[in-house]
Amino acid sequence: MQIVTLTTDFGLDDAYVPAMKGVILGINPAVRLVDICHTIQPQDPAQASFILESACPYFPVGTIHLVVVDPGVGGARRALIVKTPEALYVGPDNGVLSHVMPRTLREGVPGQESGGRVGLPPGIRAFELKDPKFRRHPVSNTFHGRDIFAPAAAHLSLGIPLEEFGPPVDEIMVLPLPSPVPVAPEAAAGPPGATAAPFELAGQVIHVDRFGNLITNFRETDLALLGGGEYRVQVGGCAIDRIVSTYVDAEIGEVVALMGSSGYLEISERNGSAAAILSAGPGTEVRVRSTANRP
Amino acid sequence: MQIVTLTTDFGLDDAYVPAMKGVILGINPAVRLVDICHTIQPQDPAQASFILESACPYFPVGTIHLVVVDPGVGGARRALIVKTPEALYVGPDNGVLSHVMPRTLREGVPGQESGGRVGLPPGIRAFELKDPKFRRHPVSNTFHGRDIFAPAAAHLSLGIPLEEFGPPVDEIMVLPLPSPVPVAPEAAAGPPGATAAPFELAGQVIHVDRFGNLITNFRETDLALLGGGEYRVQVGGCAIDRIVSTYVDAEIGEVVALMGSSGYLEISERNGSAAAILSAGPGTEVRVRSTANRP
Amino acid sequence: MQIVTLTTDFGLDDAYVPAMKGVILGINPAVRLVDICHTIQPQDPAQASFILESACPYFPVGTIHLVVVDPGVGGARRALIVKTPEALYVGPDNGVLSHVMPRTLREGVPGQESGGRVGLPPGIRAFELKDPKFRRHPVSNTFHGRDIFAPAAAHLSLGIPLEEFGPPVDEIMVLPLPSPVPVAPEAAAGPPGATAAPFELAGQVIHVDRFGNLITNFRETDLALLGGGEYRVQVGGCAIDRIVSTYVDAEIGEVVALMGSSGYLEISERNGSAAAILSAGPGTEVRVRSTANRP
Repeated sequence: MQIVTLTTDFGLDDAYVPAMKGVILGINPAVRLVDICHTIQPQDPAQASFILESACPYFPVGTIHLVVVDPGVGGARRALIVKTPEALYVGPDNGVLSHVMPRTLREGVPGQESGGRVGLPPGIRAFELKDPKFRRHPVSNTFHGRDIFAPAAAHLSLGIPLEEFGPPVDEIMVLPLPSPVPVAPEAAAGPPGATAAPFELAGQVIHVDRFGNLITNFRETDLALLGGGEYRVQVGGCAIDRIVSTYVDAEIGEVVALMGSSGYLEISERNGSAAAILSAGPGTEVRVRSTANRP
Repeated sequence: MQIVTLTTDFGLDDAYVPAMKGVILGINPAVRLVDICHTIQPQDPAQASFILESACPYFPVGTIHLVVVDPGVGGARRALIVKTPEALYVGPDNGVLSHVMPRTLREGVPGQESGGRVGLPPGIRAFELKDPKFRRHPVSNTFHGRDIFAPAAAHLSLGIPLEEFGPPVDEIMVLPLPSPVPVAPEAAAGPPGATAAPFELAGQVIHVDRFGNLITNFRETDLALLGGGEYRVQVGGCAIDRIVSTYVDAEIGEVVALMGSSGYLEISERNGSAAAILSAGPGTEVRVRSTANRP
Repeated sequence: MQIVTLTTDFGLDDAYVPAMKGVILGINPAVRLVDICHTIQPQDPAQASFILESACPYFPVGTIHLVVVDPGVGGARRALIVKTPEALYVGPDNGVLSHVMPRTLREGVPGQESGGRVGLPPGIRAFELKDPKFRRHPVSNTFHGRDIFAPAAAHLSLGIPLEEFGPPVDEIMVLPLPSPVPVAPEAAAGPPGATAAPFELAGQVIHVDRFGNLITNFRETDLALLGGGEYRVQVGGCAIDRIVSTYVDAEIGEVVALMGSSGYLEISERNGSAAAILSAGPGTEVRVRSTANRP
């Protein structure tokens, strides 16, 4: 049974999501539907992209992920199918797939928040959803989720070859990679001109989960740049002097840092909300320094 | 695989919805369950009815729609199966099916908010859920969703003929159709006694979606009464001088009117919330006038 | 098709629940997934346990209930499979299964809120989830739902015998039974030393549902202790002088008591919220007295 997942910003109070499901089941009654998330912040492709990165890797290879967070519906943005070695994605070409693309792809993107188009690497193919045969008619101007994306995902789940949906596409919109950046030490310790390994990195909170855990954009590889040693994490006026391995290593009410289950550094308060106690949220600066490269 | 959808006001925090699903799966393990909405305003059949209208038409013919918004549970209201050419509905006889009945049916209803009973037109059949054989026992006094409606939907999905559930019913409760009405011009332009085509219609907001879009009770056919020309839409102190075809035809932050994906006129703020900016919600008056029939 | 239900405190806004579903479907593509509730109060095994009691009895015998409300993740608490004559449960050993265990088991638990371990009665078997073969690797320190519990439920659904998951366990953590207790009359009516039948019981609100109904810990058997007669229910400064059989027996806006659909005494306001009108919630004291044993 082919799996189709759904990720939208339509919420759970309206009829948009069930309308999409009805359309899909009308085309392929044997498909298996799984909700990923429907409470993406309205019209926020970046958040959708982060949620996809946290969920999609755990689905079987070949799963079809339908993503409709589409502030440009009815405009010039393209509608795409993207095939990676792991999965198929159906959604608008607005950066919503950034986090499920290879990181190398995102490193080439200019720093502006709205992202830019980058060429697809080998192993990833994309097609534009153009053939009216795979749309629901009439196509509304405001709900392509129901009339273009859902029918495409359903037809894909029937095994229709990608090439039949429309012309191939060789670049897609990708949002820039918000990686932590080195902080220049106030007084350089090494000889003038030497390229010092970073002592401190500045990143940010990218997501707050239901427990108030602050998920940051620091990954294991970012921390490795600091060269090990003793870490100090600073966020919202709070300094955390160790990175623990799990919540119960902390005292009740203690704020700690740990590598979370999605591969990002998290700030957590044991049995409490770090977001509340630190008044922090998406965009809050997070700094990590280490004794190893201290100038 | 037979589809059973679920629409309730039980919310997602309690055990009411999964209890219903457990009962259904115990009777027909092969059924496919699809949630339409469980966050209908508590005890608001009219809202449930609107959501059904926005979702049900997109499901395959023959889908069973189970609807439990039932303020009269345990009282005299009847429990029904209603079969239309498109679908089967299972729910209380309290108006919850109004929007999925033919519009002609609703036009005959007296204007009171609580609705009234109307005769079923040809092609629609209804039966009362009376046979104890298709109930869960003991039947609680307060949760007919679990003990009467869910078992009925499950047995229906097994192919039990409608007639076996109980006696036929020839009229059902329908809520009045909240159509826009002509506004009398302050000074009549035509000769006294002439029946002028309307120049202005007064309707209302009937739903606000997650994006803050105001869905009104104006349909294409209502606008047609105005005879074309240039439209002006007035709501919450704001005058909108054009009806665009999609959101991106507006500037960021502009408030526009457009025909939405469910066939109703919507008021939207591009990349914002029209509901918030206009302080509008269900019941807010909306007026549409056109230059065509201007007196 | 084997059913696996999911109950968590992960909410619907994050990727935790779909990640678990993806893992399960990767192991058993034919399983049927049903959500019970994902909005359990964060890290509140007692509430999860109550929701399970209200939902699980309505699922077919042999259903697998996966429960992840796990404040002790990564610590010393054990991960368990528990098999009763009705169902299989997979979750942490922290009391989350209390309400689905026999009441006799819970009566033996010391009164402290955090619960205690009790021996399993005949007919109930439990095993610790130890065999790494049935885990996802690497096992994260903070998300055993994805890496230990979901894979266990999926393997169980394939028919793997319980014994293969790890060593048998002969006692599990159970939270105390919050039963109503007799209130000593101010002046004893009987002769000194006589064991009088109770005249009044003091219990509490254990749950508030979406309608504002106050679900208490009084069961039919508790009321039976009072010996019948005329009841008076007192909660939040309000005295209710009858126990009705369903909501419509009350006037609109009247506050009434009735035996709810889960077998607990409920306080309801017809077409309103008893919780709001009485400013009551979980923990609020509820007293029930009867004329029968009046001193």
